[in-house]
Amino acid sequence: MALGVKAVAFSYVTHVLGIAGAVLVLVWCVHFRGGLAWEASNKSLIFNIHPVLMLIGLIIIGGEAIISYKTLSLRKEVKKLIHLVLHAVALILGIIGIYTAFKYHNESNIVNLYSLHSWLGIGIIILYGIQWIYGFLIFFYPGGTTTIRSESLPWHVVFGLFVYLLAVGNAALGYLEKLTFLENSGLAKYGSEAFLVNFTAIVTVLFGTFVVLTVISQGPAENDYSYSAI
Amino acid sequence: MALGVKAVAFSYVTHVLGIAGAVLVLVWCVHFRGGLAWEASNKSLIFNIHPVLMLIGLIIIGGEAIISYKTLSLRKEVKKLIHLVLHAVALILGIIGIYTAFKYHNESNIVNLYSLHSWLGIGIIILYGIQWIYGFLIFFYPGGTTTIRSESLPWHVVFGLFVYLLAVGNAALGYLEKLTFLENSGLAKYGSEAFLVNFTAIVTVLFGTFVVLTVISQGPAENDYSYSAI
Repeated sequence: MALGVKAVAFSYVTHVLGIAGAVLVLVWCVHFRGGLAWEASNKSLIFNIHPVLMLIGLIIIGGEAIISYKTLSLRKEVKKLIHLVLHAVALILGIIGIYTAFKYHNESNIVNLYSLHSWLGIGIIILYGIQWIYGFLIFFYPGGTTTIRSESLPWHVVFGLFVYLLAVGNAALGYLEKLTFLENSGLAKYGSEAFLVNFTAIVTVLFGTFVVLTVISQGPAENDYSYSAI
Repeated sequence: MALGVKAVAFSYVTHVLGIAGAVLVLVWCVHFRGGLAWEASNKSLIFNIHPVLMLIGLIIIGGEAIISYKTLSLRKEVKKLIHLVLHAVALILGIIGIYTAFKYHNESNIVNLYSLHSWLGIGIIILYGIQWIYGFLIFFYPGGTTTIRSESLPWHVVFGLFVYLLAVGNAALGYLEKLTFLENSGLAKYGSEAFLVNFTAIVTVLFGTFVVLTVISQGPAENDYSYSAI
């Protein structure tokens, strides 16, 4: 049973929060943290690519990929292609974003994979990849039998939302971890940068919330243009 | 549409994960961190009450409160009372748990309410309280009209799960924050305590996942002994 609200109404809020989140993370990494660079003697500029790609790629484009299938009034085949391509973009940007975290660590002699954020992050990107490959094979090409597709769909939605919510939660862990490091190095706990990072985290959590609200609300019509798996 | 799996099957996994989480947090706070105390010259012992009460109270008892309504084969009135009382216990333990964090900060001259964990925590406990009061007034005593009750129910479930997932995510933030502080003070990043805390966090996230899976699965019978709001 879906919530008695139009999904498209929630989707507008999702878009606005997504734009706000993208602006906030760029203001943080470019204005406060000195910008982005693939190669630099100031290794922090390499790290700065990480939050930008993870938020704009995995979280925002990934969220738009999820709600595109629910809110667009297009033919099923077209929506499926948009859903698949947006998720592929999200996944690729996510993988590059994770690579930059390792690159920063390795070039700065910081050890890898000790924190909860890193552990969950590796798990999430693997699950996201498995989910994408399963979706491609069963729902796109070559495609499973009708039985497999109809029995898989609720699990595809539930597992997809599970992985997505883990990603949103892990983004919050990332903001907190980085800000705690900065505060331990002297950044003001009540300063403007600390508030900016915390508000970016809250906007990220709200974006994830509205993605889920969009999914559990009513699609454009009670036909196969939409899904209502839960 | 619910998942085609019996909720009670998921609920067994939830119980086991809950017991595992409770044991892990006690091993951490008692064995590794020196135990719990309401008054102590070693202020860390006051802090140690915080993770124990938040996990066992708000997260585990709160999670059991959520799934009790879905899985028990009892009369609706009995289940409602169990649901209400367990949530009240979770809420009270959560409030005491938050109080101990402030008490530790104040007695150790640490500033309050600068971190994302603390901001979200205050928001979550307020929303949890509002949700409990609304549930009490509309579904228990004096009770709303039939229309209000039936229109509220999907929102009660969705908002309740939203607040609960925020609480689970915020627990993960808490583990990461505390462990980062300890590691900055010299705790080994790959030591047994660091691994214990990260595994406790993962068990907590899995517990929350199985609470949600229980809720979106099939109750004991397709009658009013269960709800299927989403």
